[in-house]
Amino acid sequence: MRNGHPGNDSQTQNTLTFVGNGTNPKPDSHTNEIAGWLTMTRQLVDTWIKEDIASMDIQSGSVEEAMSYALQAGGKRIRPQLMLAAADYVGLEWERIRPAALAIEYLHTYSLIHDDLPAMDNDELRRGKPTTHIVFGEAMAILAGDALLTEAFGKMALLAEQGFPPHLVVAAIDLLAGAAGRTGLVRGQVQDLAAENKAVDLDWLENIQLLKTGAMFTAALAIPSILAEDHENIDALTAFGQHFGLVFQMVDDVLNVVGDSKLLGKSTGTDASRGKATYPRLMSLEEVNKLIATHVEAAKRELDGSRDDILAGLVDFARDRSW
Amino acid sequence: MRNGHPGNDSQTQNTLTFVGNGTNPKPDSHTNEIAGWLTMTRQLVDTWIKEDIASMDIQSGSVEEAMSYALQAGGKRIRPQLMLAAADYVGLEWERIRPAALAIEYLHTYSLIHDDLPAMDNDELRRGKPTTHIVFGEAMAILAGDALLTEAFGKMALLAEQGFPPHLVVAAIDLLAGAAGRTGLVRGQVQDLAAENKAVDLDWLENIQLLKTGAMFTAALAIPSILAEDHENIDALTAFGQHFGLVFQMVDDVLNVVGDSKLLGKSTGTDASRGKATYPRLMSLEEVNKLIATHVEAAKRELDGSRDDILAGLVDFARDRSW
Repeated sequence: MRNGHPGNDSQTQNTLTFVGNGTNPKPDSHTNEIAGWLTMTRQLVDTWIKEDIASMDIQSGSVEEAMSYALQAGGKRIRPQLMLAAADYVGLEWERIRPAALAIEYLHTYSLIHDDLPAMDNDELRRGKPTTHIVFGEAMAILAGDALLTEAFGKMALLAEQGFPPHLVVAAIDLLAGAAGRTGLVRGQVQDLAAENKAVDLDWLENIQLLKTGAMFTAALAIPSILAEDHENIDALTAFGQHFGLVFQMVDDVLNVVGDSKLLGKSTGTDASRGKATYPRLMSLEEVNKLIATHVEAAKRELDGSRDDILAGLVDFARDRSW
Repeated sequence: MRNGHPGNDSQTQNTLTFVGNGTNPKPDSHTNEIAGWLTMTRQLVDTWIKEDIASMDIQSGSVEEAMSYALQAGGKRIRPQLMLAAADYVGLEWERIRPAALAIEYLHTYSLIHDDLPAMDNDELRRGKPTTHIVFGEAMAILAGDALLTEAFGKMALLAEQGFPPHLVVAAIDLLAGAAGRTGLVRGQVQDLAAENKAVDLDWLENIQLLKTGAMFTAALAIPSILAEDHENIDALTAFGQHFGLVFQMVDDVLNVVGDSKLLGKSTGTDASRGKATYPRLMSLEEVNKLIATHVEAAKRELDGSRDDILAGLVDFARDRSW
């Protein structure tokens, strides 16, 4: 799996050598190339989103205008990236899971639009840009979120045109609905709001984060296994996703305390001023960092060492990121 | 299809004789029994919803509590009823389409919760009861709508457990996403808000209503045809649903002018005070009634006279209803 060689000088960082299963680009070594892989896959997902938006024939004043704004407001694309890495892990071509990668990012974008509403977190800036309701008004922001959520399931249905057996497509839709709805993301958001200014303990906080962040991460990781009928890896990838989600969330919490607001594209210190349930509220930053290290190791232990290890590199990235 | 006989005196109006394909209850004659059919099917859908809610294990302060409130706030269940009538039309047992009937009512309920929000129509009462955001707060109402929308697609995936070929389930999900999202219901809502206090003409208004009301009606009617692989009837049932939707919406508009607010469970005269685009704003009530009659006839022309005619009875009901 590591017989590729880095691109020559005339290639950009994003033009990575095709190795592995012979279809998806792979970094030569994740220790120094993971940044390049992340840039490349982010650009790939951005391109897919641009192409999908281009197909919408956007009119002025339409809901698609607000959807497009929110989708192109500078997201990291970490959920589709996890899905692409999981596709590598189970041997699926990226192009075949394009609809699912779009679906998971559309779901994430809907959740951000609705979370930012005045009735929820009341955020006016995200990634350094005005939030959707600031630009388009609250009514349009609610509707753009609704349309993105709906569109995600429309995209999932398109997987049947990518040559996957329809019963696997239905299973993937079932899993995604469970991860996004009242048993996953939405429940996490409800519990997060309910925990504001409460005396939350570690178990409670972890449960919130497993739902709010973890559910979509695990869905992103499990869907390629489902589509590839790689049953033996679903549990391991789900467990990996839960640890990954906790690492990601803990780093988010830490960055809200000590991060650079310019790099983050949003204000810091907001969790504390809102009385949000966070890890730094429960323990010292040193203790949070120890807990992060524990979950990084636990995540890596779920991986089969003989398979592609982009996933291991992504955990390191999630730990080390500063934005 | 009309060889059944009405129940004897000891039977309630809702215990209708089993005739037709031998599975679904049918009224003896739609002219005098359609009211009984509507009561029976409404109770059936109410029971399905109750059973589904009972399976949710609702905690205090959970999103399910708000979902349950909205789902049980006295809806007419006209969309699932159209689906049951369409199931008769294509020869499907009602029990098999239970997940789809729940899905279409959950989608409708989500759209009502979000439409009633202060940023949208700002309604504090619906069907005589406080709206969801009045009871549970805006944040929970937004999340309950999101959860219902997501749950609808989870329910659709369950159709695969009802013995339908998975590729037909995927096709039904695709159709429902198109009807509910940016090309259907959501677009209708956006256009409805945009048309407030504008000089709207009949074509514009009809287009809004075909999206806002018609899209979910046609989906309710088309989904059983898709699941039964009854391709020849999809176009006719879709056209029927569009005329039905226009009749339904025009009657809604008329009732907002001349209806009994007690029967309706909501205030009248609100469309005019908000400057909503409605039929009575474009023409006299007499002209609206003529247009209603035109669409009633057009809807009936789409029906195959040799098949079950519950659908014809439902158009008459949509025309004659006072609530």
